[in-house]
Amino acid sequence: MTADRFADDALTDSAFLGGQVQLLQPKTGYRAGIDPVLLAASVPAKAGDHVLDLGCGGGVAMLCAAARVPGLRIAGVERQAAYADLARRNAARNQTAAEVVNADLSALPASLRQHQFDHVIANPPYFDPAARTAATDGGKELGLAEDTPLETWVQIAAKRLRPFGTATFVHRAESAPRLLAAMAAELGSVQLWPLIPRVGRDARLILVRGRKAGKAPFRLHAPLVLHDGAQHLRDGEDYSAKISAVLRNGESLNFPE
Amino acid sequence: MTADRFADDALTDSAFLGGQVQLLQPKTGYRAGIDPVLLAASVPAKAGDHVLDLGCGGGVAMLCAAARVPGLRIAGVERQAAYADLARRNAARNQTAAEVVNADLSALPASLRQHQFDHVIANPPYFDPAARTAATDGGKELGLAEDTPLETWVQIAAKRLRPFGTATFVHRAESAPRLLAAMAAELGSVQLWPLIPRVGRDARLILVRGRKAGKAPFRLHAPLVLHDGAQHLRDGEDYSAKISAVLRNGESLNFPE
Repeated sequence: MTADRFADDALTDSAFLGGQVQLLQPKTGYRAGIDPVLLAASVPAKAGDHVLDLGCGGGVAMLCAAARVPGLRIAGVERQAAYADLARRNAARNQTAAEVVNADLSALPASLRQHQFDHVIANPPYFDPAARTAATDGGKELGLAEDTPLETWVQIAAKRLRPFGTATFVHRAESAPRLLAAMAAELGSVQLWPLIPRVGRDARLILVRGRKAGKAPFRLHAPLVLHDGAQHLRDGEDYSAKISAVLRNGESLNFPE
Repeated sequence: MTADRFADDALTDSAFLGGQVQLLQPKTGYRAGIDPVLLAASVPAKAGDHVLDLGCGGGVAMLCAAARVPGLRIAGVERQAAYADLARRNAARNQTAAEVVNADLSALPASLRQHQFDHVIANPPYFDPAARTAATDGGKELGLAEDTPLETWVQIAAKRLRPFGTATFVHRAESAPRLLAAMAAELGSVQLWPLIPRVGRDARLILVRGRKAGKAPFRLHAPLVLHDGAQHLRDGEDYSAKISAVLRNGESLNFPE
């Protein structure tokens, strides 16, 4: 990886949503798990809505959302130039129009600051920089342990939403107290949807949504179970039918009514 | 109800834990649901531990805990004189020694302030005073909508704990963001255990635990299901086996490992 652009031979091709979306990802550095795919599937967007992906990386979440919702308009902000460039290349590869801005969250350009979005999505870095050793790859380190506090992510999301627009975040479960407090401070109608690896297990991931100017009380949903069975018994995947439909068929993942 | 004491004919007798605990409760005013019983069952107390029940009301939680754990020492704080008196009468009826203090949480007497407890339990009022109409019964109103903020309950709990002692709260799920933020600010090793009425439903109640000086990351457990089946299909109770064992046999309700 150079400072501004991944060399072609540093990238590999990955299929998402059963091949509906083909994305280049760095061989080393940040590579998407299921988190941004589930995030994209959960956005309550309708045709023609405008979605902003904060910290879009190579564009997985916003491009998966665009593949699912006809006429979706997407924009992404990414502070690492090489990932912003990658997001642009990935958008082009999928014949999807996307506005990608290479900027820090806290210094958005006027084009974004003057706009109010219907939805904001974000998959902020998971790891506490103070609690881990430095990674050898600079890009991966930034992707996983950016120093922008989670509270700032939520504040920026709230600012960029139209009234009654939604912000949806995917994050590790350990961050739930901070993320919920930030959502409750900046937005309303906050909902927490725990994602548990198997029945009876602790949540590892959470989807959290808030609505700008929402007035509904906080809701804690029953967990979404990612894998069938009490443990991993066979080779390969054992995703639940619901998760498989999202990952392989590009179906939506609607928050509980 | 007079200011300081319930008249005998204003009280009725209720059996808890399959009759192991017999408690007087006011015919009108605050009457215990399953919440304090589940709270009592969840306290990780061992024989001889000292437990403080903040806002003990008529003593349901602390007396259920004492019935389960041999040699448990219990103390309760209750700011309504008539309920504090009732808690004393209930302790005596069950041949259980209990120190009951009639005081506001924020003005504890020296006897409590000079002591550090192994565990604190609390079932704070659920309703936002600003969001509901006034009840006609003064005692019920105070019991349900006391004006001490939830954050203060957690702060007082933390102050009264020995190092590595636990605070366990039962509360409505809507309060999770505030309760988690307060727990994370005052304690460590915070755990959230959602209680859902039936499989797939939103949580209505939550058990939240923190440990003084705890360093473990936050944990979000899979929910505890209160009732069998997808809906209420027959007359009478349909508690799950686990809940029934707690309510009818006085078994403990251990947080997930």
